[in-house]
Amino acid sequence: MAGYINEEISPEEVAQEQALYGPLTDGLRRLIDVAIRTRVPADEIQSVTKEVEELVARLSVDAQEESFGRRFTQDGRVRNYGNAVMGLRNAIAPPVIVEHDPENKRAFADFHLGAAYEGPPGMVHGGVSALLLDQVFGHAASLGGSPGMTGTLTVRYRRPTPLGDLHIEGRVEKVSGIKTTVVGHIADADGITVEAEGLFILPRWARELREERPDRFE
Amino acid sequence: MAGYINEEISPEEVAQEQALYGPLTDGLRRLIDVAIRTRVPADEIQSVTKEVEELVARLSVDAQEESFGRRFTQDGRVRNYGNAVMGLRNAIAPPVIVEHDPENKRAFADFHLGAAYEGPPGMVHGGVSALLLDQVFGHAASLGGSPGMTGTLTVRYRRPTPLGDLHIEGRVEKVSGIKTTVVGHIADADGITVEAEGLFILPRWARELREERPDRFE
Repeated sequence: MAGYINEEISPEEVAQEQALYGPLTDGLRRLIDVAIRTRVPADEIQSVTKEVEELVARLSVDAQEESFGRRFTQDGRVRNYGNAVMGLRNAIAPPVIVEHDPENKRAFADFHLGAAYEGPPGMVHGGVSALLLDQVFGHAASLGGSPGMTGTLTVRYRRPTPLGDLHIEGRVEKVSGIKTTVVGHIADADGITVEAEGLFILPRWARELREERPDRFE
Repeated sequence: MAGYINEEISPEEVAQEQALYGPLTDGLRRLIDVAIRTRVPADEIQSVTKEVEELVARLSVDAQEESFGRRFTQDGRVRNYGNAVMGLRNAIAPPVIVEHDPENKRAFADFHLGAAYEGPPGMVHGGVSALLLDQVFGHAASLGGSPGMTGTLTVRYRRPTPLGDLHIEGRVEKVSGIKTTVVGHIADADGITVEAEGLFILPRWARELREERPDRFE
């Protein structure tokens, strides 16, 4: 199982990784997207499928067995490249690049969702909204001083969210010991489509790690 | 915007589509997965990136602009191939193949989550759990006789869910007019990891479509 790996690299190495893996992940995102929308003939689909298998084989020549895990940089920042919402190396991630507004204990992002995030026709899958809210709320919770794992997430769907350009945000409403309450929403150009509330709890292992390496929880 | 498309095809054509697109989507899933885990040298990553761009170009030669939408078969079944959780043509979908137990108004699935669904190291992203619960609960709600869109989804995380083989289920707890309450959970081999409750509401457009085409709501 993947764990917290003590592989700490320099800012220059991080920049190199972004330049190397960013274009691959971006290309894979576009491949996922067009594979849903394409109308090319059956023989072309079969030929592309063979090429995809070839690429799987090439990348499998040397690959770790476990999931990516969470690694750190020398200056204590998280490299969660496998993360399902924002991972540099995860093509499932839209990605949502979360920005931090520490003064207001608020995390937010402007992002775009295409064909791969569909639920009802032309609309964002309700569960995708929940997925993204969970991630952004986790960032907000960490700005409240008590980073944690999601305890409870409640999502209220006010109206369908159209695929396209969207905004998401969460802000700390209350901190009580190891519990942080975050509220927020997803919005399109016409306003809020989904509202949510999250209760985040700092688990014991994280409290221990925080004592050991407080720099990783700044 | 994608919509409800009146493109109804025969069971034979559905089988052909599954045989054609299934292997492409499966290959793309493995490509997403190994792209996270690979350790091949930088020049090989760059070479694979170029090949991916080439495949994007080939599939883009003829592609619809909008998302897949929801299409139907001649016998009224839904072809939601673009769906983010179970779509035949969506490589983001794990997939979760939902089974129906109409007698108990229960929907369930056994499925596997790999490196692409990671949140905490080695664990399923909390938001991914919410994503899958939303989809499976929607199926359960439809078994209660009143299919609907998610109104509210509340997810309680009892302990981290490990990546790997998992089970998910939802069952109708109450139906009250256009409102259906579904409860359920995700479990690993050791038991329940995440519990949830969903309130599903049949929106007006769906009530109108149901009057027009009751066969699509069976």
